[in-house]
Amino acid sequence: MGCSQDDANLAAKVLLSADIRGIDSHGIARLSGYVRLWEAKRVNATPQIKTIHETLSTATIDGDSGLGLVVAPKAMQTAIDKAKQVGTGWVTVQNSNHYGIAGYHSMMALDHDMIGISMTNGSALVAPTFSTERLLGTNPISVAIPAGNQPAFVADMATTTAANGKLEILQRKHGVAPLGWIQNREGKPSTDPHELKNGGALLPLGGDREHGSHKGYSLGAIVDIFSAVLSGANYGPWVPPFPAYVPMPDGMPGKGIGHFFGAMRIDAFRPASEFKEHMDKWVERFRSARTADGFENVVIPGDPEREIEAIRRKEGIPVLGPVVDDLNYLADKFGLTMKVQVV
Amino acid sequence: MGCSQDDANLAAKVLLSADIRGIDSHGIARLSGYVRLWEAKRVNATPQIKTIHETLSTATIDGDSGLGLVVAPKAMQTAIDKAKQVGTGWVTVQNSNHYGIAGYHSMMALDHDMIGISMTNGSALVAPTFSTERLLGTNPISVAIPAGNQPAFVADMATTTAANGKLEILQRKHGVAPLGWIQNREGKPSTDPHELKNGGALLPLGGDREHGSHKGYSLGAIVDIFSAVLSGANYGPWVPPFPAYVPMPDGMPGKGIGHFFGAMRIDAFRPASEFKEHMDKWVERFRSARTADGFENVVIPGDPEREIEAIRRKEGIPVLGPVVDDLNYLADKFGLTMKVQVV
Repeated sequence: MGCSQDDANLAAKVLLSADIRGIDSHGIARLSGYVRLWEAKRVNATPQIKTIHETLSTATIDGDSGLGLVVAPKAMQTAIDKAKQVGTGWVTVQNSNHYGIAGYHSMMALDHDMIGISMTNGSALVAPTFSTERLLGTNPISVAIPAGNQPAFVADMATTTAANGKLEILQRKHGVAPLGWIQNREGKPSTDPHELKNGGALLPLGGDREHGSHKGYSLGAIVDIFSAVLSGANYGPWVPPFPAYVPMPDGMPGKGIGHFFGAMRIDAFRPASEFKEHMDKWVERFRSARTADGFENVVIPGDPEREIEAIRRKEGIPVLGPVVDDLNYLADKFGLTMKVQVV
Repeated sequence: MGCSQDDANLAAKVLLSADIRGIDSHGIARLSGYVRLWEAKRVNATPQIKTIHETLSTATIDGDSGLGLVVAPKAMQTAIDKAKQVGTGWVTVQNSNHYGIAGYHSMMALDHDMIGISMTNGSALVAPTFSTERLLGTNPISVAIPAGNQPAFVADMATTTAANGKLEILQRKHGVAPLGWIQNREGKPSTDPHELKNGGALLPLGGDREHGSHKGYSLGAIVDIFSAVLSGANYGPWVPPFPAYVPMPDGMPGKGIGHFFGAMRIDAFRPASEFKEHMDKWVERFRSARTADGFENVVIPGDPEREIEAIRRKEGIPVLGPVVDDLNYLADKFGLTMKVQVV
């Protein structure tokens, strides 16, 4: 595509971090989608990423339409650098694109004994409580918190009941979605995973008003505002769609999609060794809690992905047939001799 | 109780901000509870509130066992002062008590053209996903965001499906709780609002694993860690209980309960006038979205409380009989001549 070698390496690293952690929907399965965005001139392979506004603890970054996979780690690095200086760093980003898994960026803070925060908006798939219109993306939030002997606490979650990737799995299987995941075009509960093609919507975490969907909607809204109203990116129904063939919304009020990052130095609050000791105690207490019949233990956020990573580092990353086809299609397009074979 | 006049005024203001906004569970109905904590020597009426650790953008505050109603606004003010200097301010608090509504503190930022963030842990009423033990409080998060012509966006939410106040209403009415709010002592879904007295628990936002309760649990955990592991307060099952008659947990690892506050200057990211213009556009677009049959409009976080406040400022604040009795009991105890009468 014309990316620098460094940017290409960085983007590959971010994609692989999803595959190795078992979040297959956000790994190399997305590569052809990014290439199509570049072909549609919506991704700039050689962006000039610039800080356009800053204070000692904040920055606003213009991603110059770069791959989010490249823009986001640079923005997170800026947050980390600010935290080194004044205790915390907070960066909002405009004019970017899809940034892969939220957790890659938040976890960058861990090596520096910092808490990392990462969020992004995305194209509108989610209906706020009472709405029949899709106005929010699945707007994920990730928070990574270092521990001592225990592995880090890493939450990485869409602010919807279920991530879009889970719905895509049901679509392929022609399965039935649990009530509370989606609604039809009239705003009625639905179990049909194909509902989004017919004007339906994903539902905010909570599912319906009685079960707190106004809270999931509030969280998604906060992600949208921090990522885009604060940065000058597009928000709400105006966020550019990921599929390159979907036309851009009319009357876009900003530039590209938006992200928001935070880094907080632990020792800006208390000595890191003390914090880690208590964090270990927190993790051990929760993991050893009494469980309901049929469940082995309480899961600490980040446990499942870490367990999958341990397996995949030994056994490799399984890749679905259609993804293999996609990669070979890309190899042809770019005249690469290397082909992927199903083994 | 021996508070200074300033502290008494501040505490009264925080309590009244709940009543006037319709959050009756967190207003003067709690006053006798605070007094009982003082009688049990768990609240210090004349605290020396001190910053015990700081950087340019952060502080850790020791509340000296003061009323949270007094400690929290002072901590939030510290966050605001830091934001004035370096763009953002972040304050974690140990050795505090129940701080009233989360939204009072976050909303302090609005007059300064800042985004305000407020969260607190609380005594364990909530079972993490798969757990039969109560390990988290209802751990609320509030985020207040200024707009221009539109009223501010104010989210203020427990990280559970339903706030404990809603369960208390059902208990008084001997009503039935919707599935997804509570579980029984074996971790099975229950609709009995009295379940907490029998070893049951409130459920994290999402309700069960299939509906994303691991996300609500993660949010509650993040509040607990930011408020208490970062500050040196008690966390998880060790948070002091609100009712003064409930014994303190064994082996408490910290001091009192914990809070966490943030203030972000809008103009640390972009000019405030630009932000507010886009925030108005955001609010107008969401409020005017097409709605499902039977719903008038999409609600912007903060709308319901603002509407109740407008009514109560005209018509007064209705107070339940038992709360009137409580206030008269307190008047007797402190030798006040003023009595509350039911009209």
